[in-house]
Amino acid sequence: MNEPAFQDLYPDDYSNCYGCGRNNKSGLHLKSFWDGEESICRYTPAAHYTGGMPGFLYGGMIASLIDCHGAGTAAAAKARESGEPIARFVTASLKVDYLKPTPLGIELEIRGRVTEIKGRKVLVDLRLLADDTLCATGSVVMIQINAQ
Amino acid sequence: MNEPAFQDLYPDDYSNCYGCGRNNKSGLHLKSFWDGEESICRYTPAAHYTGGMPGFLYGGMIASLIDCHGAGTAAAAKARESGEPIARFVTASLKVDYLKPTPLGIELEIRGRVTEIKGRKVLVDLRLLADDTLCATGSVVMIQINAQ
Repeated sequence: MNEPAFQDLYPDDYSNCYGCGRNNKSGLHLKSFWDGEESICRYTPAAHYTGGMPGFLYGGMIASLIDCHGAGTAAAAKARESGEPIARFVTASLKVDYLKPTPLGIELEIRGRVTEIKGRKVLVDLRLLADDTLCATGSVVMIQINAQ
Repeated sequence: MNEPAFQDLYPDDYSNCYGCGRNNKSGLHLKSFWDGEESICRYTPAAHYTGGMPGFLYGGMIASLIDCHGAGTAAAAKARESGEPIARFVTASLKVDYLKPTPLGIELEIRGRVTEIKGRKVLVDLRLLADDTLCATGSVVMIQINAQ
C-alpha cells in the first residue's frame, strides 16, 4: 500500500494516542487504510499483551484495536465524503462482542465498514479476524472534534 | 484494605492478563476489592497512555479498565454467592459509553455493580470516575470458564 495511513493524516496536535498516534513513542502505531469499501488495519500484538491464559490476546487490547481503527475509519470516511482534510474523531460509544479467543503470535486483521454518516457523527461496524477466523465484532459511534 | 484483591485469588494459570494478571511482568496489575455492595478499582494510568490529545486517557485503556474490573467483579460475586473458590471469567460482551474526556495524572476510580448472576453468566454495570466526575459508563457480560 503506497497511500498514507489515515493516522498519518491526523493533525499533529491530535497524533499522540497510545493506540494509533504517530507521535506516541511508547504506543502501538496502528495504521488504517482503505481496502475497497472496507477499511483495514493489520497488527501483530506483542506476547505480553496476553489475557489471563497465555497465548491469547487480552480483551482490553481487542477493544483498543476496534476503537482506534473505528476512529480512523470514521475520520477517513467523513473526509472522503466532504472533500475536506481528515479531522479527528473521538469515541462516543464502543460495543465489542467476543466470539472466540484471539490467538497471539499471528497478524490480526481488523476490518471496518461505515454504516452511517450524519453531520459530525459516523457509525462503523468492525470485525477482528485471525487467520480468517472471526474472533470479535464491534460497533462504534464516533464524533468529529470541532477544534482544528 | 487488608483483604486480598480479587485478582490475587485467581488460579495461577489464569493470572497472566496484561490488564490484571499478577504474573504479567509488563502489565497494569489492576486490583479490585469490595466496597459494600459495589466493587472498586483505583488506578493512575501512566502519561504515555494518552489519547489523541495529551492530558487525556486513550479510549482503549478506558475499555481495558472496565473490562478487567468487570471480570474481577463477576468472579468475586459468583464466588460469594456459591461459596466456592474464585473462578476465572472471560468477557462475552463489553459496552462503553464515553461521557467526558478522562484526565490523566490523577487516580481514577472504577466502580462495579452486579446486576444479574445466572449460572455461569454474570452481568456487571460499571462507572469510571475522575475526581468524582463521571467520565464513562460500561456494562459487561462475563462467562465463567469451565476448566479449573
